[in-house]
Amino acid sequence: MNLDELDTPVLLVDGDAFDRNMKHMATLASQAQVAWRPHAKAHKSPAIAEMQIAAGACGICCAKLGEAEVLAAGGSRDILITTPVIGTSKLMRLMQLANQTTVSVVADNESNLEEMATCAHNAGVRPDVVIEVDVGQQRCGVPPGHEALVLARQVMESEWLNFKGLQGYQGSIQMMPDFDSRRTANLDALGKLIETAVIIRNDGIQVDYLTGGGTGTSVIDAAAHGLTELQPGGYLFMDSRYRDIEWAHSKRIPFEQSLIVMTSVISKPADNRCIIDMGLKAVSSDGGPPVLQNLPHASFKFAGEEHGELAWENGGCPLALGEKVFFIPSHCDTTVNLYDRFIVVRDRIVTDVWDIAARGRVQ
Amino acid sequence: MNLDELDTPVLLVDGDAFDRNMKHMATLASQAQVAWRPHAKAHKSPAIAEMQIAAGACGICCAKLGEAEVLAAGGSRDILITTPVIGTSKLMRLMQLANQTTVSVVADNESNLEEMATCAHNAGVRPDVVIEVDVGQQRCGVPPGHEALVLARQVMESEWLNFKGLQGYQGSIQMMPDFDSRRTANLDALGKLIETAVIIRNDGIQVDYLTGGGTGTSVIDAAAHGLTELQPGGYLFMDSRYRDIEWAHSKRIPFEQSLIVMTSVISKPADNRCIIDMGLKAVSSDGGPPVLQNLPHASFKFAGEEHGELAWENGGCPLALGEKVFFIPSHCDTTVNLYDRFIVVRDRIVTDVWDIAARGRVQ
Repeated sequence: MNLDELDTPVLLVDGDAFDRNMKHMATLASQAQVAWRPHAKAHKSPAIAEMQIAAGACGICCAKLGEAEVLAAGGSRDILITTPVIGTSKLMRLMQLANQTTVSVVADNESNLEEMATCAHNAGVRPDVVIEVDVGQQRCGVPPGHEALVLARQVMESEWLNFKGLQGYQGSIQMMPDFDSRRTANLDALGKLIETAVIIRNDGIQVDYLTGGGTGTSVIDAAAHGLTELQPGGYLFMDSRYRDIEWAHSKRIPFEQSLIVMTSVISKPADNRCIIDMGLKAVSSDGGPPVLQNLPHASFKFAGEEHGELAWENGGCPLALGEKVFFIPSHCDTTVNLYDRFIVVRDRIVTDVWDIAARGRVQ
Repeated sequence: MNLDELDTPVLLVDGDAFDRNMKHMATLASQAQVAWRPHAKAHKSPAIAEMQIAAGACGICCAKLGEAEVLAAGGSRDILITTPVIGTSKLMRLMQLANQTTVSVVADNESNLEEMATCAHNAGVRPDVVIEVDVGQQRCGVPPGHEALVLARQVMESEWLNFKGLQGYQGSIQMMPDFDSRRTANLDALGKLIETAVIIRNDGIQVDYLTGGGTGTSVIDAAAHGLTELQPGGYLFMDSRYRDIEWAHSKRIPFEQSLIVMTSVISKPADNRCIIDMGLKAVSSDGGPPVLQNLPHASFKFAGEEHGELAWENGGCPLALGEKVFFIPSHCDTTVNLYDRFIVVRDRIVTDVWDIAARGRVQ
């Protein structure tokens, strides 16, 4: 099927750019001799997870238990859940999952660990636990230092939990525009994680697993040799926010834009504007409006949930009814989460369809 | 199942409030002797469409063809597609749908009507066409007056299309805060639609169908006796934006909030804040952040795609790990579009599960 034959709005992946991104991260990690466990929250697709494993990834990260369940059902065999799993109902689901595949989960709370141990005992499994350290984001995690040691001890003393190591993720710095500032902030965060590992090691507990990092700090993390495992997610797709940050002093962006929303003109009500079939339900807006790819003189604005408007300040809309208009999403994760599949295109031909099977799995 | 046993984040419907909203719109329309064709873009659920028909609705509106296909497969028998359907591929899908159920579609373009007639001829069906008039929104639609007459004539002259009437929807005024301003703007828009109908009637073409309106103007439209059919969507659920507009001089809100996102505390990193499991993937942000329902002293902010943060300015987070926190979405349509089902609760007991079968059907 040709690109022009697809109904719109549709979520496209430029297959060649995607392949280069896939390969580039594998090379980056391999040259730095660091493991990489890409984050499935970006793609929510067992098919892509499988490709990442084939490219050398050591396993997969999932943000939520429900996402992990779908990835495991789709064949993923080593999954880290990067958000705490709270409450008996979810912990029992976690143990069912741990019975099927290798699962590790982050934790930052004593009572959660107690309940987890009870559930693990009841289910007869022994999941891996990663203590989450707040290295600056002020989200989940215990402060660096002693509190992490207390939780590590608790895990070590539990017959039904296995202490795997530490997670320190600094999501809020991934998109700092200035490269030097981002590197400074990232090395500061990394220092807190390493310092915590030292404190735990000094207590006689082995810590040989430090996981974290994202696409925006991937180059920095690979060079720093602090983390033992990288968690990049968005690198496969990129988006306008990632595109607009400074990547290094050379200014070269190491990853290419591969995610595109293709839309069509559905109404031409005036000479200086037209209406397209992409509104708030077809691309996410939390990172700002999407960026027009092929019409330098037009401006875009949302016109409700189902429509978008293109306007030309000086008149002269050059588009015919039905003509295709292409957009770069501002935020790849939340745009992917609106769609059920990726349509993969190479040289304007559809070569693959990848299901976004874990779409909407927020539980 | 009890409310407390549900995994979170979860999209709840307060069944009693929902029922009252359902009944109130039926009463409003029945007393005004106007037909109502509720908009399924709000709920995307064949189960709810069936309830609306049972409550007296004359049919269902869908925003997109793909939404209509799911609603028809789920049993809906009279569907108006309120956005133009452009291009041969979609028009052929439209004709397949018209072979299964009664379908009408809006149009605002001569070449689209030509292609539609050809496709109808090829498929051997004769769909109803509604000419869309731009009554002020500056989105789709021809200007009021002569241009609508030209298209109405084109439909009348086509052997394969049936002229049904006019659509005039003023989406941008639905949430004007001041009731009087909203009424003035709405009556102005209505005047343009009626004036256009008169021009077409003066040409000898019968026009006995004028469809439009939304939840925010429903009270005004019912009293105005201008439209022959109302298209409210959000009235079943409401949201914080609809809640905050002035509904009438009496200040009484005719519809109740029935849509709720239930979340849980997943981390307690400090005394003055906690982290919940609702981020940008579990509630929409295009209408602003969701509104906390049960914690008057806390403030909410998004903390990424998977997390939210609650903060207390003066310390003292009163919530335990796992405790439930309830939110009113700022925008019901785009929040519903993130979920696969509604969990219906009455007196804290789950009484129904309604599939959001047309979720994501943007084509």
